[in-house]
Amino acid sequence: MNHAEFLTACRDLLGRDHVLTEHTDTGAYLTDQRKRYVGHALAVLRPADAAQTAALVRLCVAYGVPMVPQGGNTGLAGGATPDTSGRQVVISLRRLDRIRQVDADNLTLTAEAGCLLANVQVAAAAAERLFPLSLAAEGSCTIGGNLATNAGGTAVLRYGNARELCLGLEVVTPQGELWDGLRGLRKDNTGYDLRDLFIGAEGTLGLITAATLKLFAQPAARMTALAALDSPADALALLNLAQRMAGPLLTGFELMSDFCLQLVAQVFTSQRYPFSQPYAQSVLLELSDNESEAHARELLERILNAAIEQGIVRDAIVANSLAQSNALWHLRESIPLAQSARGLNIKHDIAVPVSQVPAFIAATDPIVQRIAPGARMVTFGHLGDGNLHYNVMAPDGIDPAAFLKQYQTPVTTAVHDSVHAHRGTISAEHGLGQFKRDASAHYKSPVEIALMRALKSAFDPLGLMNPGKVLPD
Amino acid sequence: MNHAEFLTACRDLLGRDHVLTEHTDTGAYLTDQRKRYVGHALAVLRPADAAQTAALVRLCVAYGVPMVPQGGNTGLAGGATPDTSGRQVVISLRRLDRIRQVDADNLTLTAEAGCLLANVQVAAAAAERLFPLSLAAEGSCTIGGNLATNAGGTAVLRYGNARELCLGLEVVTPQGELWDGLRGLRKDNTGYDLRDLFIGAEGTLGLITAATLKLFAQPAARMTALAALDSPADALALLNLAQRMAGPLLTGFELMSDFCLQLVAQVFTSQRYPFSQPYAQSVLLELSDNESEAHARELLERILNAAIEQGIVRDAIVANSLAQSNALWHLRESIPLAQSARGLNIKHDIAVPVSQVPAFIAATDPIVQRIAPGARMVTFGHLGDGNLHYNVMAPDGIDPAAFLKQYQTPVTTAVHDSVHAHRGTISAEHGLGQFKRDASAHYKSPVEIALMRALKSAFDPLGLMNPGKVLPD
Repeated sequence: MNHAEFLTACRDLLGRDHVLTEHTDTGAYLTDQRKRYVGHALAVLRPADAAQTAALVRLCVAYGVPMVPQGGNTGLAGGATPDTSGRQVVISLRRLDRIRQVDADNLTLTAEAGCLLANVQVAAAAAERLFPLSLAAEGSCTIGGNLATNAGGTAVLRYGNARELCLGLEVVTPQGELWDGLRGLRKDNTGYDLRDLFIGAEGTLGLITAATLKLFAQPAARMTALAALDSPADALALLNLAQRMAGPLLTGFELMSDFCLQLVAQVFTSQRYPFSQPYAQSVLLELSDNESEAHARELLERILNAAIEQGIVRDAIVANSLAQSNALWHLRESIPLAQSARGLNIKHDIAVPVSQVPAFIAATDPIVQRIAPGARMVTFGHLGDGNLHYNVMAPDGIDPAAFLKQYQTPVTTAVHDSVHAHRGTISAEHGLGQFKRDASAHYKSPVEIALMRALKSAFDPLGLMNPGKVLPD
Repeated sequence: MNHAEFLTACRDLLGRDHVLTEHTDTGAYLTDQRKRYVGHALAVLRPADAAQTAALVRLCVAYGVPMVPQGGNTGLAGGATPDTSGRQVVISLRRLDRIRQVDADNLTLTAEAGCLLANVQVAAAAAERLFPLSLAAEGSCTIGGNLATNAGGTAVLRYGNARELCLGLEVVTPQGELWDGLRGLRKDNTGYDLRDLFIGAEGTLGLITAATLKLFAQPAARMTALAALDSPADALALLNLAQRMAGPLLTGFELMSDFCLQLVAQVFTSQRYPFSQPYAQSVLLELSDNESEAHARELLERILNAAIEQGIVRDAIVANSLAQSNALWHLRESIPLAQSARGLNIKHDIAVPVSQVPAFIAATDPIVQRIAPGARMVTFGHLGDGNLHYNVMAPDGIDPAAFLKQYQTPVTTAVHDSVHAHRGTISAEHGLGQFKRDASAHYKSPVEIALMRALKSAFDPLGLMNPGKVLPD
């Protein structure tokens, strides 16, 4: 391939300013969020719209240039980082950032791939509607990246993952053709579900340029409570009770071990341990209510009183205001920050069937202790989805970096083996990218890998679309 | 191919009783529900379980025999009827009828493909859980067929289609391999979404043998109301208001024109017109409430009072009991029966964006009248999903069969053109099968058809799995 000729053609198509080749310009695009991967690229290419993106893909195909699509570059699995060959290009979708349409009566919004998630939320709110996808990176991640990785977040219990929030897509195929699948329909049974195939494929089957998203009526109130419990089994019983009594109003159910809350209190002196005595587990419950704050609070109190009567819950705090609700959420959100403040952890983004969470923790904690005696378990997460951030911290007084170096591989292998034995997944929210590609293939059946390879070959026979991600080479 | 040898091998595998070749035995499997298609088959084959199904598929592949998977044979698009060549076999999944597991704490149930939908509902209820998929054929359709066609029904507004109610699948591939994708996980981001590819593919990409389904907490009460309105636009405004005030408690929102209710009252003398005077449109609203019947009724009354104050609703009836709720639903369910009693109709199972329903009706009614003057419009359906059963009945005094013969093609073409212009779908719930296969291909873009063909070739290169369905040959 003639690199100079290719880059000239790119400049002709996109304009000089949108073909970045100097390291001062490209650096931010070439390292992943967790600084685990540092790639090289022939160029970072920034098309202006879907038609230009399609033309650019055709150009890459003509010159045989492998492409790495990228949104906000906030992924946690290295899915948007090029390899180190310097022969790939990054296609940044950030300039495709228009909200194309808000159809409040249809409860849909059509956004281009490069829109920040926060901007999608704002556009929905401006039409007095809710776009419920919410996650820590929402100020810098893009909706295209959210869909390419099927992002989760804190409201999955009620609203589902990014997949469930998408009705239609616009995609550039690996051949550079534009597929207009931007349907705003709740029902459409006319053939194969291409939409869900592109969602979660991490850009390996095509490049998402726009999406039609589901909106919801804005709830009148959100109300939060914190419950103290003795065990994960009691937390599961509380989940059952809350789902029976509140049904779809239950939008959040987050489990946090005593150690997590102690850690937050130690690191952030303004965040005191919330109860007068320690309890083994805490659960943060959130209701979203279309009636009123008073109705939500009354319902939360009724749930917690019933749980206390049944001996499931030992103590409880129900927020008196939105500010108090936010303070309880702040506790939960401080856990990863408190962890980071104490140094590196061995992190796992896993899910098991909700019913298996107590058994999984009971079986896996001792396995980790046998491998790494004294390691401290930082177990928290979205119990309502069976999704735990099952993290392992160095023993007190041990250097975190040295601990990580020695134990990461054996601990993670053991945790993933246990997840697999409990019919769970080693990547609940974050995807595979380069990071978990091989581990995932290890646990999947040969039949499933063969089906995935057949899909990849059918859509991208030249193997130019985000090669080396999701599937092992 | 040696037919006799193939049939002998089938008998060896399944036992003589489960290889049906006599017309007295096979007849019921060879005609579709609407008696639009009558096929012939080499045999109807009835495997006992998933392993036997996989072995059977391998046998068909070895002998080059095309396969037509079939569940309850209640489909409305001829997707489960073989062609007339007599060279295909029907594989009936009805004997795979075990509920394999109910995991109440995980809110999941694993059922084999041949389970009747009603039996799945019953198994969920026995565990004090709800499986919300519900449709007219539930006593005879199977869950495998529901998934293969991505069935809709009356609770889609709240719970989604069959697709949204499925977490995992077990599938026999067109090569006769068994894929165990029976995951009970709310989050799993490890590769391509094979599940959603098989769902809605009408058996053309593989053969579903079991599914892990989502359950929900049983609501404490269901409560129904009927509102009288002047126009579809007012119905849309009521939908907005009800979604804002009731959020996810709103589980049903059915539009019925005055003509529909008049027709029911004429045909079924026990079903009187519900209001003291005629109104252009009626809407049936249903709430599912996890608190109490009293709470649901009070909320419905509040919604309807607000709508009356805003001039959206003219009159309203709120059910006082479950019996009265059922009576209101009975009105809605009697519409297709009343239609049938008056002879054949030109039926359309279409959807447009919810916001486009008033404009679609306003634009399409006059087009139909120009083609078939005096035709009577039987317009009703799931307004909350944008899904209308937009049916056309012969003018008073005209023979329905003669009307159908003369007008079916021009009327349906015009209705579908209008649907397409409103960015809608010509098959909302029923799928394509053989019936709408060509019409659907007419409206889809070449890019989409090419992607669908690439999928079909990748999964079923020999073209033996339900050939001639979904995609034109």
